[in-house]
Amino acid sequence: MYRPGPKNLITDVPGFAVGHATDERVQSGVTVLACAKDWPAGVDVRGGGPGTRETEALAPENLIGRAHAVVLAGGSVFGLAAADGVATALSAQGIGLTLRPGSPAIPIVPAAVLHDLGNGGDKAWGLEPPYRALGASALHAAGPDFALGSVGAGRGAMAGLMKGGIGSASIDLGGGLIVGAVVAVNSVGSALMPDGTTYWAWPFELNGEFGGSKPPGAQADMGNPAPDESRLAQGRLLPGANTTLGAVACSAELTTAECTRVAMMAQDGIARAVRPAHSLFDGDTVFALASCTVALGEGRQRAIHVSRIGSAAADCLSRAIARAVYRSRAQVASQ
Amino acid sequence: MYRPGPKNLITDVPGFAVGHATDERVQSGVTVLACAKDWPAGVDVRGGGPGTRETEALAPENLIGRAHAVVLAGGSVFGLAAADGVATALSAQGIGLTLRPGSPAIPIVPAAVLHDLGNGGDKAWGLEPPYRALGASALHAAGPDFALGSVGAGRGAMAGLMKGGIGSASIDLGGGLIVGAVVAVNSVGSALMPDGTTYWAWPFELNGEFGGSKPPGAQADMGNPAPDESRLAQGRLLPGANTTLGAVACSAELTTAECTRVAMMAQDGIARAVRPAHSLFDGDTVFALASCTVALGEGRQRAIHVSRIGSAAADCLSRAIARAVYRSRAQVASQ
Repeated sequence: MYRPGPKNLITDVPGFAVGHATDERVQSGVTVLACAKDWPAGVDVRGGGPGTRETEALAPENLIGRAHAVVLAGGSVFGLAAADGVATALSAQGIGLTLRPGSPAIPIVPAAVLHDLGNGGDKAWGLEPPYRALGASALHAAGPDFALGSVGAGRGAMAGLMKGGIGSASIDLGGGLIVGAVVAVNSVGSALMPDGTTYWAWPFELNGEFGGSKPPGAQADMGNPAPDESRLAQGRLLPGANTTLGAVACSAELTTAECTRVAMMAQDGIARAVRPAHSLFDGDTVFALASCTVALGEGRQRAIHVSRIGSAAADCLSRAIARAVYRSRAQVASQ
Repeated sequence: MYRPGPKNLITDVPGFAVGHATDERVQSGVTVLACAKDWPAGVDVRGGGPGTRETEALAPENLIGRAHAVVLAGGSVFGLAAADGVATALSAQGIGLTLRPGSPAIPIVPAAVLHDLGNGGDKAWGLEPPYRALGASALHAAGPDFALGSVGAGRGAMAGLMKGGIGSASIDLGGGLIVGAVVAVNSVGSALMPDGTTYWAWPFELNGEFGGSKPPGAQADMGNPAPDESRLAQGRLLPGANTTLGAVACSAELTTAECTRVAMMAQDGIARAVRPAHSLFDGDTVFALASCTVALGEGRQRAIHVSRIGSAAADCLSRAIARAVYRSRAQVASQ
């Protein structure tokens, strides 16, 4: 029987920490994913309006292919500064690549941002957007426990016409192999089926983690296959205005190229949990990280393991998306 | 109410023709998708073991970005010769790019192949594999009507541990805008949920086109999130040995870059209909073609239209996958 890790969070992967910083006045925030050291990392960008930093450093054919931390942020292009805050803070702690003694440590901090500029918060920041400081605060807050729902990078997010937010989930595959996902959901598409109650991700739910709602036995019409503007995200269809930002992590020993494959397969988790996904109006981006504590061997068995991890990562990402919306809805309902 | 086109086939897109050639002794075949003239075309390759031809000619930054026909073939690398048979036959008819008077017409025939070499058919072809001739035959057979199930490129295909095959579906979005998909399903993953009867694609089904089976109200365990070898495709986990090859077409006027986005979004149709998908053992490839009879305008509305077409293409591809398996199972049952 497959089961979530003890926390059902991506931090069930040992060595991984997550922290949020939220600015309620701005209605936005930052989420930092901190690795115990530089871990092999890959990225896959599939949205038509992405906002990213340091993705090229993770290309398998390039030199580095590792990350010390990953930043998910609100604030559109201004949110990219959060990674600067994180990189500077890490370097001051001596964390980063050291190319020669005495020069600053160089942390690799890939980042992706979502657009929440139109959500009604105070964005009159002039020349001083808050994201650099939020990045440093979120890093400072990083630990094994973190909140889900309308917090951090997900504070200003919307999932279609509903509140979006931060979700996470994990799975224990046995033998020390843990896979987890964390996501900030700000999608054009909906996480709910057209009945308005069943999550697209329902087949992947474990232990009622997002309410346990199953689809009705016979559904007459699953809705517009090519949703029009009004059905989807009223007034939010601006290029790059919507995004599902995810990261998956595992305890396996993966190369950068294998992390890239896992990130690619994890995008299927977005496809299954949000419809539509990967449109011109989404900036969908998924990072994958590997703590490298579980060896996988070589040859065909290794490729099987990588594919299994990718499949589990997709399931975790689907579950994390549903949990994000479920938790944010619960928060709205309790206010 | 959204409905399929009159045939519920990709050939509901006017100007599009499909033909099969099947070699029962070899247990393999070829499917040719023929455009009325050179249409803008894009491609998206997401499997870890692809076998393709002329995909670079469809890159948006390259010169051509159009196709006269697309070939889906069995036979692994040997199947690529089918595109040669098609290109030669088209050129002899004067179809292709004409760079100077008197030189042969140059047809652009992108292709993708699936692996069916281990399916028990007679593969002792030595220096004369049958695929070049099968390509020419399939082109000759191309028309508005074509068979689904275990035929053409899908003759030797398997979907997980079940018979795979050819599927197709279409949708009429109104105003002359038709979207359709055709697919050859030879996936590692299964098109059925772990209950063994419900198609993953069930939410997208129209008019009972693949049997109308809905999921049970409460499913205790949706199965291994990281399926092991034995659960998935016994003995078939060879790199590149499994593949879902698809093409989507629409009647809209799209650029090559927009076709690429539609192909990318259509991959979500594979993710939703097959689990797992896009593994190292799949060669998943999707082409997108545009007949350019319906204008889309410019600006933000245009981007909305492209995203709607991509979403509809994903739904059609999910439906086509389920129809492929459904028809092939029915054929097996009737034998």
